[in-house]
Amino acid sequence: MAFGWIDEQAEARRRAGLVRTLRPRPADSPLLDLASNDYLGLSRHPEVTEGAAEAARRWGGGSTGSRLVTGSTELHAALERALAAFCGFEAALVFSSGYAANLAAVTTLGPHGSLIVSDAGNHASLIDGCRLARGETQVVGHADPEAVRKALGTREGAAIVVSDTVFSVDGDRAPLADLAAACREYGAGLVVDDAHGLGVLGDGGRGAPYAAGLAGADDVVVTATLSKSLGSQGGVVLGPARVIDHLVNAARTFIFDTGLAPAAAGAALAALRLLEREPERAARAREVAAELHARLTAAGLEAVRPDAAVVSVRAPSPERAVRWAADCRSAGLAVGCFRPPSVPDGISRLRLTARADLSGAEIERAVRVIGETRP
Amino acid sequence: MAFGWIDEQAEARRRAGLVRTLRPRPADSPLLDLASNDYLGLSRHPEVTEGAAEAARRWGGGSTGSRLVTGSTELHAALERALAAFCGFEAALVFSSGYAANLAAVTTLGPHGSLIVSDAGNHASLIDGCRLARGETQVVGHADPEAVRKALGTREGAAIVVSDTVFSVDGDRAPLADLAAACREYGAGLVVDDAHGLGVLGDGGRGAPYAAGLAGADDVVVTATLSKSLGSQGGVVLGPARVIDHLVNAARTFIFDTGLAPAAAGAALAALRLLEREPERAARAREVAAELHARLTAAGLEAVRPDAAVVSVRAPSPERAVRWAADCRSAGLAVGCFRPPSVPDGISRLRLTARADLSGAEIERAVRVIGETRP
Ligand SMILES: Cc1ncc(COP(=O)(O)O)c(C=O)c1O
Ligand SMILES: Cc1ncc(COP(=O)(O)O)c(C=O)c1O
Repeated sequence: MAFGWIDEQAEARRRAGLVRTLRPRPADSPLLDLASNDYLGLSRHPEVTEGAAEAARRWGGGSTGSRLVTGSTELHAALERALAAFCGFEAALVFSSGYAANLAAVTTLGPHGSLIVSDAGNHASLIDGCRLARGETQVVGHADPEAVRKALGTREGAAIVVSDTVFSVDGDRAPLADLAAACREYGAGLVVDDAHGLGVLGDGGRGAPYAAGLAGADDVVVTATLSKSLGSQGGVVLGPARVIDHLVNAARTFIFDTGLAPAAAGAALAALRLLEREPERAARAREVAAELHARLTAAGLEAVRPDAAVVSVRAPSPERAVRWAADCRSAGLAVGCFRPPSVPDGISRLRLTARADLSGAEIERAVRVIGETRP
Repeated sequence: MAFGWIDEQAEARRRAGLVRTLRPRPADSPLLDLASNDYLGLSRHPEVTEGAAEAARRWGGGSTGSRLVTGSTELHAALERALAAFCGFEAALVFSSGYAANLAAVTTLGPHGSLIVSDAGNHASLIDGCRLARGETQVVGHADPEAVRKALGTREGAAIVVSDTVFSVDGDRAPLADLAAACREYGAGLVVDDAHGLGVLGDGGRGAPYAAGLAGADDVVVTATLSKSLGSQGGVVLGPARVIDHLVNAARTFIFDTGLAPAAAGAALAALRLLEREPERAARAREVAAELHARLTAAGLEAVRPDAAVVSVRAPSPERAVRWAADCRSAGLAVGCFRPPSVPDGISRLRLTARADLSGAEIERAVRVIGETRP
């Protein structure tokens, strides 16, 4: 029977305790949220939600077509100008998601005959980009510039190095300056995904590449999402105008995708304006993360020192990680739970996110619940 | 230098007259729109834009995480129930785009060791799905059930057949009943993309699979976008609950992507409610397409008889197609222009879309402009 094999896989997942289920939340969830990626707490900020509402009313519920046909509005152009200016790049191109932006960047910048050097801890969307790209991918050890140099040395010709700036699972930072130096030694381009850096790292949240002095460099391309610190949906690629022009002409997830909905563009633009006006939000997210880490460690938990706003806490097994997260939830705390097969290293953990708007009392409560429910 | 090869490609595009540029439109464009995919004219309907605005205010600017973490709201669940009920399927799963939905469906239903039979005219997102999937893809001739049978006969084991229901370029319809029969002969699953059928074909716009008597079948999976007839953004996969559960557990563009923004979900849900209340909108879109085709043909233009709401008009060359579309635009009419490399058959054409809310006078004006500007 068609799709018969699905039942066997479902059964295997059940046996392994790896079944995933959706748990739709209400609008007024009573849970304390340390699970979302709303790092600056902007998703529900009235200026952001009004930005979405106003854009929908003015521009419509959808963009109505590919960005190359009817899907580009002056709102998209304004958002692109604002993102480029904020992050310090010549040009920007907005996509329907960060996932689509990553597929676009890697496939168009890693063409046939080229080499793509990819960090083993990269996000799924970068990995899918490598798999879709016509270039040859070499996966190198996590956050290892020497391994990158070695890979670049294996071949002549066009090459890119692809890495998250902040890795989504453990929240650790890539050695950006070192990676850029390695790229320059070999004339390679650097393509980095700042999904978890934008809004959190760099002066006023300008991102990890900005913090590393790489903003505006002619051999650096940055991707990011509008769905985390900017509290909206969508993705962006930032870089030299010639690279952006190339994407407009060649990126399949740009050409064959409907443009980002006006409400999402409006929300992201409003969030960006807010962040320009209140640059302290970025530093506050980092402070909350540092405080979370300090208190967790003081409570005897094994937490990774955060480089941005993600704090990862080790769990002894997938089953116990799931149970731990469930117990936190029962005690009123939402935390993420990452486990195989969605972690590259097979290590299960709770994933906590620091929000700039968490109060001291909330941080204290979160740490208490996590400590009390530990396996 | 890094990215040096981009300039050569840009130069080659310039020489070939194939440069694409973005043309952001104002909110109140004076152009008559026959280029968008807003088939029912719902994108700017006040109920749809209010649906977006209200959802943003109630749920926030973004969904704040993966659907498996914090990104599932009761709004997503309501939209999924409504889509499943409307299209006649057991279950539905909403994605951030139709592109993401197609990548999810093909990769998860075409696993290692399986056969994927794919129509040569399929949309880029289905093609990318085939390329990402671990199964082996065989591309077969366009809309050719015999070729599908032959491909299915080459191998034992799990197999799926993948096709658009309405092909985006020429607007022609796939032989769905025949494809389903072929699948059943071989125990294969049928995966069809109803991006251009939903809202236009079938009783009240329930889609091409519904019209072909395939809704709810246990061997049929349908993908669609919320960005065309429903005037919003997002994608959906519809099918048996066990298939949807499988996607929740295995689809990378679901698991590793931020959930659809509330505003987009709210807009799509409002559009669906409207369509349920005003089912005549679907028939009207088809009537407008038929009238457009009749008048274009009467004017001596070579247009493909539309099966849905897309009307394709042949152009003699890529350059003249571009020129023709530009001349239409100068005369106040927005039309699509499809040409290599974004058409599978190398044929350049104007692509017109019929909107349910086009008046007779507007249709007349459009045909007059197209005739007067013909190359
Ligand atoms: C590192 C990283 N890159 C890309 C993405 C994808 O962005 P989006 O959710 O906007 O598709 C995510 C998470 O969703 C991410 O964590
Ligand atoms: C046939 C078809 N499938 C899928 C898509 C992708 O849908 P979306 O734009 O929602 O990503 C499109 C167009 O955009 C399409 O025409």
